[in-house]
Amino acid sequence: MFSIDLNCDMGESFGVWRMGCDAELMNYVSSVNIACGFHAGDATVMRETVQMALQKGVAVGAHPSFPDLQGFGRREMRLSEQEIFDVVLYQVSALKGICEALGAKLRHVKPHGALYNQAAKSSKIARAIAEAVKAIDVNLIFYGLSGSFLIFEAENIHLKTASEVFADRTYQADGSLTPRTEPNALIETSERAVSQILQIIEYQTVTATSGETAAIKAETVCIHGDSGNALEFARSIREKLIENKIQIQPC
Amino acid sequence: MFSIDLNCDMGESFGVWRMGCDAELMNYVSSVNIACGFHAGDATVMRETVQMALQKGVAVGAHPSFPDLQGFGRREMRLSEQEIFDVVLYQVSALKGICEALGAKLRHVKPHGALYNQAAKSSKIARAIAEAVKAIDVNLIFYGLSGSFLIFEAENIHLKTASEVFADRTYQADGSLTPRTEPNALIETSERAVSQILQIIEYQTVTATSGETAAIKAETVCIHGDSGNALEFARSIREKLIENKIQIQPC
Amino acid sequence: MFSIDLNCDMGESFGVWRMGCDAELMNYVSSVNIACGFHAGDATVMRETVQMALQKGVAVGAHPSFPDLQGFGRREMRLSEQEIFDVVLYQVSALKGICEALGAKLRHVKPHGALYNQAAKSSKIARAIAEAVKAIDVNLIFYGLSGSFLIFEAENIHLKTASEVFADRTYQADGSLTPRTEPNALIETSERAVSQILQIIEYQTVTATSGETAAIKAETVCIHGDSGNALEFARSIREKLIENKIQIQPC
Amino acid sequence: MFSIDLNCDMGESFGVWRMGCDAELMNYVSSVNIACGFHAGDATVMRETVQMALQKGVAVGAHPSFPDLQGFGRREMRLSEQEIFDVVLYQVSALKGICEALGAKLRHVKPHGALYNQAAKSSKIARAIAEAVKAIDVNLIFYGLSGSFLIFEAENIHLKTASEVFADRTYQADGSLTPRTEPNALIETSERAVSQILQIIEYQTVTATSGETAAIKAETVCIHGDSGNALEFARSIREKLIENKIQIQPC
Repeated sequence: MFSIDLNCDMGESFGVWRMGCDAELMNYVSSVNIACGFHAGDATVMRETVQMALQKGVAVGAHPSFPDLQGFGRREMRLSEQEIFDVVLYQVSALKGICEALGAKLRHVKPHGALYNQAAKSSKIARAIAEAVKAIDVNLIFYGLSGSFLIFEAENIHLKTASEVFADRTYQADGSLTPRTEPNALIETSERAVSQILQIIEYQTVTATSGETAAIKAETVCIHGDSGNALEFARSIREKLIENKIQIQPC
Repeated sequence: MFSIDLNCDMGESFGVWRMGCDAELMNYVSSVNIACGFHAGDATVMRETVQMALQKGVAVGAHPSFPDLQGFGRREMRLSEQEIFDVVLYQVSALKGICEALGAKLRHVKPHGALYNQAAKSSKIARAIAEAVKAIDVNLIFYGLSGSFLIFEAENIHLKTASEVFADRTYQADGSLTPRTEPNALIETSERAVSQILQIIEYQTVTATSGETAAIKAETVCIHGDSGNALEFARSIREKLIENKIQIQPC
Repeated sequence: MFSIDLNCDMGESFGVWRMGCDAELMNYVSSVNIACGFHAGDATVMRETVQMALQKGVAVGAHPSFPDLQGFGRREMRLSEQEIFDVVLYQVSALKGICEALGAKLRHVKPHGALYNQAAKSSKIARAIAEAVKAIDVNLIFYGLSGSFLIFEAENIHLKTASEVFADRTYQADGSLTPRTEPNALIETSERAVSQILQIIEYQTVTATSGETAAIKAETVCIHGDSGNALEFARSIREKLIENKIQIQPC
Repeated sequence: MFSIDLNCDMGESFGVWRMGCDAELMNYVSSVNIACGFHAGDATVMRETVQMALQKGVAVGAHPSFPDLQGFGRREMRLSEQEIFDVVLYQVSALKGICEALGAKLRHVKPHGALYNQAAKSSKIARAIAEAVKAIDVNLIFYGLSGSFLIFEAENIHLKTASEVFADRTYQADGSLTPRTEPNALIETSERAVSQILQIIEYQTVTATSGETAAIKAETVCIHGDSGNALEFARSIREKLIENKIQIQPC
């Protein structure tokens, strides 16, 4: 029997501003990546989100970012490797402490936004992030884009990794994500999303937009929580995976 | 033989801006309270300061604050008890994780600035801070103003405490600090400072500005690092305490 | 014929986080108070909100705050009078420049949240804010709580003022707002709100929760934009005021 | 008789943290570029620096930056052109209002740090900054790296410009700055600095590190205020330029 992890970014409210429907989405995913205050989340939102995750029984991960609240961590920044190590160490430590104070366990780390994207393409950035995670706890699972430097560098220093694919994104013949600038970058229906996930799980392949078949590895599938129909999309994917005898559980 | 802890606030640089002469001061104190990013300190400064403390062999504490970088955490703010719990939990967790990643041990927590002052006079604020510290690690030592709600509330929930006095401040007949608005609030010479500390250590009393003798408890003495002659003041206090057979060591 | 100004706080989104339905609400009010980046609003949100106000033809005011993004400027802070002067000068200047660059005119200033509330009760804080506004442009209209130090101190230094009442709040026999901690502090229906506004406009009196009649002055009525039914409430108030031959226009 | 403008970045303190010796340096330069709160400077520092400039009679400019306090605006960020327009509009407006409130006049704008460097090489970024400056006041003088897109794009939209050279930097045969990574990038003595400035002023040429002569245009010379011997360097340059009958005055 096959199994897969469904993960979702959460705790992305800040102060009075609300984002996402975390409580409901936690019914459909197995892992959550919680913002750590640099792109979203504040001390109160973080504590509340960890409490919610405890109640729902989902696995908790940290979701560290560049320091860019106004840009939601989505704008490229050029930090030195030491600075990247430091901001990841700070953010993951903060969430880990909150988890432990509440009786939860920090299980994984997934970089956010521009930090994730830059690290996927840069061995140095990926390495700096992975080193910070390793310094905190060598048993933390490192979530990163399947086939990217994130996975490669984390494995290099003997971290456990989880190769990530995206439920709502199409792929290219080389196994990379279709850039968002392309018209067919997004998968709009849960039917197509599930069909792609099933193929990835069962055959470790994906059908590229060109029609070609590419090899791909997936241990976790990212469900986006910030689109209009995120809840319905997540619920539907979960149901169809279960119908297809795929077990949904943390890595 | 008597012993006392000398503590100093450190890691209060931010970005390109430098403050204090942490490396030198660490030669004279036994404990340091490291800023956690809310009034001063950033992820890089925090990591560097913990490394320095490791090298110098001084005990490491967290120095959490209200979120007020521009005001250096010195401006009163009215946060709810839950918000105070949350910001202390976040900050202390961040520093604790950095310590553990570097092989250091977080030993104590001392609130900073306006948070310290408001908590000294408010059982509710003191309790909120103490509860956050307890949630993180019941073995952390809680540093607070001698005779204040900080000590009272921390003891109430069975935390270890360290009653703090100030090397450069005079006292009133009721054992409280002379307000800074008073002309004789400050002690300017290390001679007078040491003489007061010796009396506090040996007799558990202090001679108030009125000439009266007041009872006072001291387990740790705060040395300020941000005055012009801070280094000379600290060096001199250390030397004279040693001459007087007082052992300088962490609580 | 009577006339009144309806004002609403706007531009309180930040980065990716949205708040309020500014575009729709601008159809119902005559003046908007735009956040200046310290409690909400960022440079982009401010520019967009000014553009929207220009298109809708509503009068534009600045809505300066304490520096407290996470607390939305609602938490009390103790800043010196000089610091208050400086942060108001900075924020109002920023919005004034944005207005002028886009061809709009800054007409008024209304302090936000805790700054508003603290100034209403403190002549020193009120004076510091008013002095900053006067330094920028003596023709700016100073919006403040009717009967409070905000109005008193602004008039003292010869600023034009607009006495503000709240559409959704009840009043006490002394003309002050019923504290939010009281069960009958809020007016829930637009019928009761309009009836109170009409009495204030036509008779310069308000019926207190005690049943007594209190004198009150109103040149502008604040409509809150952040409650669930804000749009319906605002639309209904506007319609009923017009039915009652009250002209809705900026002060 | 030749004349030149000497400019220096100022107002780069923040909160309790001090940087530079602005008051002394203002004796030696003719123009100052004042930080606007995004990389340094806060509302109080800005007001104080404008007051100081008024007293010293130096010309005042705004020094807007990317929003990156911890990185002092020196870290590359990728903002959209609209975001760049918005943050420049906000910052310059804030300083302009402060100037006008104090009776000073904002005369120029010079982008800071990474924003300056990225714009020098990108017509789109340069254009976005220049458009924001133009929207505020078409009479503002746009300071930018000599020969770069900053000058080119500002002239394109009919802004007045000031071509900037650096007192302590050497040049390449193509008229560009020697990268800081090169061993001979910096000019260490005021003698060599003055000699280079004199050549630039009198012959509109510079002797490159290769020994070749390159054409270069200079209307303003940047003196750095943050090096160890900044004061002595500035004083010496001023004196020697005056000895050489060069008049020092704003553009």
